[in-house]
This record gives sequence, C-alpha cells and structure tokens, in this order.
Amino acid sequence: MKYDKNFYEIKDNSKIFKKIVSELDQIGYYKLPFLDISKIKNYSKDINKKNIVILGTGGSSLGAKSVYEFLVPANYLLKNMIFIETIDPLKVNFCLNRIDLQDSQFVIISKSGTTTEVITLLKYINTLIDINNSNSTVITEKESKLDKFAKKNSIRTFYIDKNVGGRFSVFSAAGLVPLSMCGVDIQKLLEGCKFLNEEFFQKNEIYDQIFSKARFLVENKTRFSVNVVFSYYSALEAFNKWYVQLWAESLGKININGTRQALTPVSLIGPVDQHSFLQLIIDGVRDKTVTFIKIENFEKYIKVPPKDKKFDIFEMDYLNDKSMNFLINAQADSTIETILSERDIPVDVITLSGVNEFSIGKLMYMYQIIVSCIGAFLQINTYNQPGVERGKEIFKNKLTSIDE
Amino acid sequence: MKYDKNFYEIKDNSKIFKKIVSELDQIGYYKLPFLDISKIKNYSKDINKKNIVILGTGGSSLGAKSVYEFLVPANYLLKNMIFIETIDPLKVNFCLNRIDLQDSQFVIISKSGTTTEVITLLKYINTLIDINNSNSTVITEKESKLDKFAKKNSIRTFYIDKNVGGRFSVFSAAGLVPLSMCGVDIQKLLEGCKFLNEEFFQKNEIYDQIFSKARFLVENKTRFSVNVVFSYYSALEAFNKWYVQLWAESLGKININGTRQALTPVSLIGPVDQHSFLQLIIDGVRDKTVTFIKIENFEKYIKVPPKDKKFDIFEMDYLNDKSMNFLINAQADSTIETILSERDIPVDVITLSGVNEFSIGKLMYMYQIIVSCIGAFLQINTYNQPGVERGKEIFKNKLTSIDE
Repeated sequence: MKYDKNFYEIKDNSKIFKKIVSELDQIGYYKLPFLDISKIKNYSKDINKKNIVILGTGGSSLGAKSVYEFLVPANYLLKNMIFIETIDPLKVNFCLNRIDLQDSQFVIISKSGTTTEVITLLKYINTLIDINNSNSTVITEKESKLDKFAKKNSIRTFYIDKNVGGRFSVFSAAGLVPLSMCGVDIQKLLEGCKFLNEEFFQKNEIYDQIFSKARFLVENKTRFSVNVVFSYYSALEAFNKWYVQLWAESLGKININGTRQALTPVSLIGPVDQHSFLQLIIDGVRDKTVTFIKIENFEKYIKVPPKDKKFDIFEMDYLNDKSMNFLINAQADSTIETILSERDIPVDVITLSGVNEFSIGKLMYMYQIIVSCIGAFLQINTYNQPGVERGKEIFKNKLTSIDE
Repeated sequence: MKYDKNFYEIKDNSKIFKKIVSELDQIGYYKLPFLDISKIKNYSKDINKKNIVILGTGGSSLGAKSVYEFLVPANYLLKNMIFIETIDPLKVNFCLNRIDLQDSQFVIISKSGTTTEVITLLKYINTLIDINNSNSTVITEKESKLDKFAKKNSIRTFYIDKNVGGRFSVFSAAGLVPLSMCGVDIQKLLEGCKFLNEEFFQKNEIYDQIFSKARFLVENKTRFSVNVVFSYYSALEAFNKWYVQLWAESLGKININGTRQALTPVSLIGPVDQHSFLQLIIDGVRDKTVTFIKIENFEKYIKVPPKDKKFDIFEMDYLNDKSMNFLINAQADSTIETILSERDIPVDVITLSGVNEFSIGKLMYMYQIIVSCIGAFLQINTYNQPGVERGKEIFKNKLTSIDE
C-alpha cells in the first residue's frame, strides 16, 4: 500500500520552527531589518517638498500608511503624506485639488512595475505636472518596466527584492523611503523589528507566545474562523487594514492537500466599535477570536476637568479628573472583561508601551512572523496570491477588446 | 402533548411582510422620510460657521458621516464636517488643533443623553471654548439628561424619537440636522428613501428583490455566514462602516428559541481591496456572500491621456484614452466575473446611478428594510442591543471604584 498524502500529520512547534529557519534565505522579509539603510536616510533627508504623495496600492501603500498614521497624531514634525490608492475620478480629483503639486514629491511604488492603478495615476498626473527626476522617486523590482521607465527619465530608484512580497514589504524600501522622507525615525522602527526577530529566533518568551497563538488558531480554525483585531487607538486603523491584507491574502489558500484554508480577519476600532460590532461578538454565533490592542501610555495628558456645576445634571461625576488615557483603557478593560465573562470567546491582549517607531515596528514584525507560522501549520504557500491573478487577465482582456 | 416552541415554522414572505406592516407604528425609522423637515432647514440655513463639529459616536455619527463622505468629493460647496468619535488623547488633540474653534458649530449628539465619549468630550471642549447657545446644537431623546442640560443653557435641541434606534437614526434629526448645516439637500435625500419605501410597501420589483435576498441569506446563514460589501468608490467607506454597524448590532442576537443568530458583515473598498481580501474570497473557505456596489456615472470626466512616447515602455496602451469612470467599473466587472466563475460564491450587484443625495438615501433606506426582513425571518429583536449593556455597567463600576 502506498499512502501519498498525509492529511493528519501532527506537527509539533519545533518542526514548524525548522521550516521557518529553512526558508530564511528564500523569504526575504525576515532579514529586512538588518539591511543597510544609510542610502535611504541620505537620500530622503534632502527631499524638502512639503507633501509626500504616494502612488501605490495594496502592499505598496498599506505598510507605510500604517506607520505614518499611527505616528502622526503624536508628532507634529512630520510632513504630509498623501496616499492615492484608487482611480475613482472623484477621489483622485478631490485629493489632487487639495495639494500644491509644485511642492510635492511623487513616490511611485509598484513591485511588479505595471500595477494598473499606479500607471493610470502616473499617466494622468503627468498631464498636470511633468513627472521627472526633480519631483519623483520610484520603488519597484529590478528590471521591471517601471524600473526601465525610471532609468530612461533619470529618476532615482530604490528596489524591492524579488523574494519580498508586497504585503511583507513595509520594512523594505517600499515603506522606509517614504517614511524616512516624512521624518519617521526608520532606525528606531527597525530596532523594534530586530528586537522581535531576536526574541523569536533565540526562542525567548515571544517564541512560545507566537507558537501558542498560531497553534490555537489553526487547531480551532473551523470553530473560530473569524479573527477580530480590536484596537483601542483610532490611529491604528491603517494598521488594522494592513493586518487584514496580511492575514487574508496570506492565509486564504488551497493547501498541499487541495483543501481550502482560511482565517477571516476583521478590523475594529475601540471604543467606537463598542457601538457597532461588539453586540455580534457577544450575542451572535461563537465563531470569533478577539485580539485587543491597547496603548499603555499615550504620553499626552488630557484630563476631564474637575467637578463643575454646569455639568452636574449628567450625574457622571465619576468621569471628573480622569485622564483620557485612563478612560480609554478602562473602556478597553471593561470590554475585555465582558467578553471574557462569556467564556467561549477566545481573547488575547497586546499592549504597546507607547506611540513611537519602536512599538509599531515590533507589532508589525510580530504579525508577519505569526502569519508565517500559521501558514506553515496550514501547509499552504503563505507568500503567493494565485486567486487574484485571473481577475487581472479578465480586466486586460476587457480593455483590449471593448471600446468605452 | 403540548408543543411550545416551533423551531421549524416555515415562514413565507407574506407572513414576514405582515409582521413588518404590523410594526410600522412601533418601529420609528419607517416613517422618518415623511416627517416635516422645515424646522431643520430653517434652523440650519442660519448656521454660518465654517466647521460643523460632531460630538457623537456609533449610530450618532455613522449615518451623517456616510452621507457626508459619499457626497463631499462631488460637491465643493459643502462645509467641513469634523467627527470626534473617540477619546484617545492623541486623536482628540490632533483633531481639535486643526480647527478654528471660534468658527465651529458643535453638534452634540447622544440618544441616551449620557454616552461616555460624548460627555467626556463635551466637558473637555468646554475648557477650550465655552459651550453655549451661540455655538452649539443638541440632538437627543426628549427628557434625557442632555436635553435637560440643553434647556438649562438655552441650547437649541432637536429630538430623536424613542422608537428610533441609533443605527436607524440617519434620517432623523441625528443625521438631517448636521447634514443640512453642511449644505446637503436633505429633501432629495429623503426622496430617495420615499421612493424605496413606496416601491417596497406597494410590492413592486424591489419587494421581490429584498425578500429574495433576505430569504437567501437566512436560509444559508450557516453555510455563508460572512456577508461582504465590496464598494467600488472609496468615498463609500463610511457607508460600509454604517452597514457593518447596522448588520452586526441588529442581527447578532439570541432569538426567541434561545439560539445564537449571526450574519457577519465585512467592509471592502475596490479596487484597493482586490490587493487584499479578494484572495481569501476566491481561494479560501467558501463561507462568504459578496455584494458589489458600483457607481454608474461619477459625472466627473478624467481621462487617461492618449498615447505618449514617454510611457511606451509600460506596454499598457490599452489604458490610453479611457476614462477613470470606465476603468474602475471595468475593474469591478472583472472582479465580479472572476468570482462568478468560481460558482459557489453568491454574488449580487447594486449599481447607483450617480453620486447624489437621492442615490445614497435610497441605498441606506433599502439596507434598513433588508435588515428588518432578515431580523423577522431570524425571529430576533432587530432593534435592541442587550449584549453591550453589561460592558457599560462594568465600565461605570470600574470608574467609581478605582482611582487613576
């Protein structure tokens, strides 16, 4: 008897860890934090335009957007970063009308070099202002058509390695160049990644945490098929979207045994979504895990004022003299307590120490590693996206065969 | 033998329709489009501040935000509407620092009159600028503490009826007052609702469409437990969030037989999320339905320029001379075709004729009616939110018992 497939192979953590270690050279994102960034820093410090305009979509915008939006409420020194990620005429027009194009640096990001949205925007914006080496930067794969375009027009180019996927590219040039232009301390950002990398590969505490979580999610993937990230800081919204992309596009796959695998990501922001999705978590079908993300210290002290007769009527004196930092975390803790008391909703909590480069670097790098581990458990290819290629073909055929 | 519960009662559409008709007087949202709005229009036309600042969260902000953000890229006459929905100190500070408080009208919206976030913000903002009848408007339930506060301070108040739930309140004063202040034609908005209302209650085409959809979703709720809305216009993002609230908070319930019911909403924006969640829909577990929303005519003509040697290198001449209106809809159609070819992913498409008040009014009113029908099929109370009340208690206890 020959038994070709092993559906039921029980994988222990060390086998998965070995697989991860064995792919360290093929999968590019692991080593990104250790690369030399001096060229990026030197180049970006000389960009003195007021606006950094990103033409990019998906993995080419979400990473930088996550870091930028996370930091911007905490740091007024940053330049404006504007993301043009879509091609609906109203939004494109609306965005471009609001910025001084002469005072803008255009960062054109496309790994493949032929992303429809990016090339459409590039061609259109070139009718408004000449795109050239004085106002543009290109980030792409070596030898792509966008790379050739940049060379022909002497536009400075930074490369994304072939083995770094779009959704794993935030710590490559795709994220670092625009972030550095905006004044983000990319050194500190990468220190957060390095810290996580070392903790994991030296099998410290974080190693066990990541494996417990990955293993739990995989073993319960049918019962708890939806994974909610509930972030109690509204500027984590772009991070949440990045998480959705990373999770959905990496883990929605047909595995080596030909069976469909999936963990469905959902993004929530607290306390806003206490008034929305929370009811479904608590009283609905129990098919969801919930990961809370909290900020321990916002380092910005806003207090509700002391007792004031003007507001006596509300009988809400318990709010008086409390800081908003305390209040939002008390809201998070109350929601956590409510959910935990329900017993069959798995919950975990990630607390970031503050709103800074190190924190967000660590968080995003950790999510990438978790996804790699889950993917290995699921026996899928975590790094491709075969399902979306057919749509691109259909689109191209539609355009070459149909006149408007 | 006594048989108390009828788990398996087969409900035909006419029974559900009768139930809907029977609740027309108890459930307030149905009649909102038919109420007199002259007071709102008269009041709002005299508000000449530059910024309309909404202090509200959940149902008190999402409705107005959906309409405002949908329209704003199409209409430059609108005033600024700023939503402060959260209490993290960085975001609050960031928002307030960017606006001229002297040139702002504060619209304080809380149905209960004691929403933590709103009262916290109100107390804090009052330390920056005196909140009084010259710069504020209140929207709440009659006799709430916020109503009493407004009366004491002679602040103009508009009411939300007791039988209009927060997530069904967009066409009440909660939505109409701030929208009208911003220059939105609320008459046209309500005409969209009326049109839908009449079509449905006169059992025209839309009646069958709504019932087929509601019935399908309920009958397949276990197989297809996740309902994706995939909107191909980025300014529908706030609408998508409103949809998530409406769906999750209305349909995540324990029903009359004591069983947990749920349909899980997911919000996507195209083409951006073609680079994200789409892979999961196509190759992942088949537990999702997908509703596409398209804009037929953006009424803003932006064209990709004709052939230009500068861009020959891309070999993407098929983009030349196409309008962005055409391109984004071709992207939507390609995605629809890709998903349809997979056979076991249920898809439907809603096409809005344009970006205007009538379209969005119709769309939102339709979603409210669909939710009412689904709720009736599921034998739940669509209009309450018992699951989230406990968290509020825990929060209050935490604050009264713990010092910061």
